Amino acid sequence: MSDPRFRGVIPPTVTPLTEERELDKESFARSLNRMLDAGVHGLFVLGSTSEVVFSTDARRREILETAVEVANGRVPVLAGIIDMQTERMIEHARDAQAIGVDGIVATAPFYALGGEAEIEANFRYIRDAVDLPLFAYDIPVCVHKKLSIDLLMRLGREGVLTGVKDSSGDDVNFRFLLEENKAAGNPLNILTGHEVVVDGAYMGGADGSVPGLANVAPRPYVEQWDAAQAGDWKRVAELQDELAHLMRIVMVPKGVQGFAAGVGAFKAAMKELGVIASNQMPRPVKALEGENVEAIRGVLASCGLL
Amino acid sequence: MSDPRFRGVIPPTVTPLTEERELDKESFARSLNRMLDAGVHGLFVLGSTSEVVFSTDARRREILETAVEVANGRVPVLAGIIDMQTERMIEHARDAQAIGVDGIVATAPFYALGGEAEIEANFRYIRDAVDLPLFAYDIPVCVHKKLSIDLLMRLGREGVLTGVKDSSGDDVNFRFLLEENKAAGNPLNILTGHEVVVDGAYMGGADGSVPGLANVAPRPYVEQWDAAQAGDWKRVAELQDELAHLMRIVMVPKGVQGFAAGVGAFKAAMKELGVIASNQMPRPVKALEGENVEAIRGVLASCGLL
Amino acid sequence: MSDPRFRGVIPPTVTPLTEERELDKESFARSLNRMLDAGVHGLFVLGSTSEVVFSTDARRREILETAVEVANGRVPVLAGIIDMQTERMIEHARDAQAIGVDGIVATAPFYALGGEAEIEANFRYIRDAVDLPLFAYDIPVCVHKKLSIDLLMRLGREGVLTGVKDSSGDDVNFRFLLEENKAAGNPLNILTGHEVVVDGAYMGGADGSVPGLANVAPRPYVEQWDAAQAGDWKRVAELQDELAHLMRIVMVPKGVQGFAAGVGAFKAAMKELGVIASNQMPRPVKALEGENVEAIRGVLASCGLL
Amino acid sequence: MSDPRFRGVIPPTVTPLTEERELDKESFARSLNRMLDAGVHGLFVLGSTSEVVFSTDARRREILETAVEVANGRVPVLAGIIDMQTERMIEHARDAQAIGVDGIVATAPFYALGGEAEIEANFRYIRDAVDLPLFAYDIPVCVHKKLSIDLLMRLGREGVLTGVKDSSGDDVNFRFLLEENKAAGNPLNILTGHEVVVDGAYMGGADGSVPGLANVAPRPYVEQWDAAQAGDWKRVAELQDELAHLMRIVMVPKGVQGFAAGVGAFKAAMKELGVIASNQMPRPVKALEGENVEAIRGVLASCGLL
Repeated sequence: MSDPRFRGVIPPTVTPLTEERELDKESFARSLNRMLDAGVHGLFVLGSTSEVVFSTDARRREILETAVEVANGRVPVLAGIIDMQTERMIEHARDAQAIGVDGIVATAPFYALGGEAEIEANFRYIRDAVDLPLFAYDIPVCVHKKLSIDLLMRLGREGVLTGVKDSSGDDVNFRFLLEENKAAGNPLNILTGHEVVVDGAYMGGADGSVPGLANVAPRPYVEQWDAAQAGDWKRVAELQDELAHLMRIVMVPKGVQGFAAGVGAFKAAMKELGVIASNQMPRPVKALEGENVEAIRGVLASCGLL
Repeated sequence: MSDPRFRGVIPPTVTPLTEERELDKESFARSLNRMLDAGVHGLFVLGSTSEVVFSTDARRREILETAVEVANGRVPVLAGIIDMQTERMIEHARDAQAIGVDGIVATAPFYALGGEAEIEANFRYIRDAVDLPLFAYDIPVCVHKKLSIDLLMRLGREGVLTGVKDSSGDDVNFRFLLEENKAAGNPLNILTGHEVVVDGAYMGGADGSVPGLANVAPRPYVEQWDAAQAGDWKRVAELQDELAHLMRIVMVPKGVQGFAAGVGAFKAAMKELGVIASNQMPRPVKALEGENVEAIRGVLASCGLL
Repeated sequence: MSDPRFRGVIPPTVTPLTEERELDKESFARSLNRMLDAGVHGLFVLGSTSEVVFSTDARRREILETAVEVANGRVPVLAGIIDMQTERMIEHARDAQAIGVDGIVATAPFYALGGEAEIEANFRYIRDAVDLPLFAYDIPVCVHKKLSIDLLMRLGREGVLTGVKDSSGDDVNFRFLLEENKAAGNPLNILTGHEVVVDGAYMGGADGSVPGLANVAPRPYVEQWDAAQAGDWKRVAELQDELAHLMRIVMVPKGVQGFAAGVGAFKAAMKELGVIASNQMPRPVKALEGENVEAIRGVLASCGLL
Repeated sequence: MSDPRFRGVIPPTVTPLTEERELDKESFARSLNRMLDAGVHGLFVLGSTSEVVFSTDARRREILETAVEVANGRVPVLAGIIDMQTERMIEHARDAQAIGVDGIVATAPFYALGGEAEIEANFRYIRDAVDLPLFAYDIPVCVHKKLSIDLLMRLGREGVLTGVKDSSGDDVNFRFLLEENKAAGNPLNILTGHEVVVDGAYMGGADGSVPGLANVAPRPYVEQWDAAQAGDWKRVAELQDELAHLMRIVMVPKGVQGFAAGVGAFKAAMKELGVIASNQMPRPVKALEGENVEAIRGVLASCGLL
């Protein structure tokens, strides 16, 4: 069943580390408050961007407790419960519930090979174990399975799922999902996770966005949401162009790829902007440095942010 | 170098066959005229939708000659020269030039494994051999290689490529391509091939669309283009919703997949609408029949087209 | 540095569960003893077959403690430390070391996207943290990265890796790895994880095998190893044919796939053979039943095992 | 129905070109005669190695006519009819039949997306059109579809297929295919296309091999076949080790990949051995040169071939 609390801009939060790879709570609070002050409508903690899979269980709890404390009820907090299979996801879900989050987010199970029967059972087992709104996180690039529209709609209509966070990179399928959801009376909150095509997602009727780039630039995403709500599509597109230009920070690093380039660039930019103290990355990933940081500074400068 | 002739709605044409799998020129002319009367801005003949890879060289020429004759200069005609490697692509390009097309469209080479060096050389060899505007067709689902933004921009700036027809299904990358192209002064005409996300593409600044669905419903795509040009984004989105609903014809067939479902559905719908005489498909593909055709009729009816 | 203890047949152990999904220690001990009595040369616990990714940390420890206790020093025990990234793998490695295993087995990190730099750093961090022989587990079907020969050889020569457990399904690459290892003076113990092509692996010089099917039929794999050591290749091939025929238990189940079919079939066969009490599977996977179990019985019967 | 003529070593022939990229018939005849003198049991012309997909129809005929003329009935000639879909494959099959080949080899259709129904229909249409033994060429790395065992066995039992040329790189599946074929009374001739694991394939009961490397070193492959027929598996493995070492010619080139590295290395080695006059490659591929050729010479020297 969809839930009106989970609409608008819900950034997946970056997790700042000290040089010694401890959680930098001060930087984390500063970053969260900066986004909350900019008007974001929720926080998604312990998603891929939060380096959830690099974290021990103790670190996960530490990150989540800090976020819930900082948010302090100002906006709802969604917690990722990313892990390989059901039992571990349920452990994380219970931890998150004890900490006081407002909803949880789970992917399809991964590593062990399976089919849609296992994916469906996984969502049902989680929902039975923990009475919290549950979002499905569609991220085939990480879990190597695509969540089908049939499955999502069925679980939405039955109230197993509250919504979908789409990072599938498949905009055609995403549009069909929006279309099916509308036809079914909107049982699902549908959020896009792709920073540079939020305009198209809003035009198609998405309920919000989960843009990692909002850790760097929260205000334009909030403005974009407001413009979309007001039907000012010209402004939506202008802001998208600016954000697409800024998103080039993840394209300019050389010699790195994937998480090291993406979240690495977010952290480097946030450090250059004075939001966080260090751009340290979790093992086994190296922080960006030297010319890669210079290239990111160049993008920030060309966007008027330095 | 981009070319103002190749903007707007440029449908990839469906190739009607008789029951005996001969080219049904009468149906083909009817379908082309129907799209031209609706105001489409160009025709893309011998693309994937035209069943180019199912055709002998003689059949390719027959299709192209018919299209050029029917178009009769009313709009520019782009010809696909799809084949596995350079020598064959050049043979097709020369045939197309002799028939009098206005531009040609080539994919990366495929079947034999290679890297970007071979892809780049391939486009250069073609452009050297045939003096016609050349579009790169980015269709990794068929050729299993993605054309990089760096390569496309380099070939655009050098005048090797006039444009790109994007069927990559990668909307994030597509947005970055639009962004780079704008920053470089628009050396490329950039067209999207995805029927249900044309609105987002136009908002990002795409020069046009190549929607297979326009064989079924040309008029709404032309209206959508006009609305986008006028900045009426609300209307753009409304039309997109209608078209996304209609595009469900490719989702409803059961027990078939890929080309058989996609182009199969276009043909079945066109037959039901009286545009073509038969929905016959090329060997080894079976035409849709029975309940699958009924399901397509259902979608057409729900769109008010029957 | 290679280690002579890790040669021969080292089955990845199946984890029997009770109907309530508790660890069935009695069945587990019976299965382990049956393999040890058959003469296997080691045990690989907490690999994919052991349902490691379905297990909480507590369950992992319970499985490992039971295995170490049953093995009681008769053969070396390798422990999988499968998890998404470095910190968690090190937690598992320390648990395994405390329990008293003889070596550990790690895959490339997964879920978060990266490159070979992160894979290499991951193996180095683990080896630095825990002073135990470390095997690289090459299983791209689960982690979606292939370990390159260059990386494996470099880490072998430097003593970071003791060996490789190959489940890559890439026999050509495997042969080149064997070839490189021989040329370098055999710094690595190289084990194949593919049950039906052990004969070819032994001919190429592999140091052993890790056959899940040995949970069902341990004796033929031990005989095959002995025949290979004696140069009796005719016998090696005969045994392989028998085992390939038996391995059809994983092919005959209908309507299931991946882990549910593979380990599901092992468990069903072991139950039918009286080795374990239940073929229960971990959530979210369903145990095989009905006609699928009958089909497995059919294969067992055709192999003379019932 | 299997056919005893197609057993043993059947090399996929390399196509030598002049510097101007014409067919170098003299070099071609020299290479073919060298293999025939070494005792190979057949020739597979116009496979991937023959650069079939780089060739115009005229070039295909020229290559095939030369091969048939040189073979002159000494061994059977198989002709590849590689193309995207049925109609073109049948055109090539008719050309091959007119030229006088002994059998034809077809892959699954590619480029257009489809399912197993289209693959099956394709083989049936070809077999109906041309009365020649038909081999299925299983090469998913090029056509992106795997031929299932069920399909191959069904078409074998019905006499549509005479055999299978396996370049799937999936040795586990290959072993199951051999197993099923044996159980069915050997309706198929099953040949492996992987140069470095021929020993394992022969142990599993394969009817022969199609090794591209035999263009460089035909004699060891013939010896290996003879040793396998005599049950001298120790010798089979020794020869395989030598051939695996020689096959490193395809691994040593830097900065190139796929066809350019693989067939490029075969041609470079053949030129260095005096078999062909030039190592020219078809457009858009560049011939290996400089340090890459030196590296190949190094491998040849280490094998005692220079």
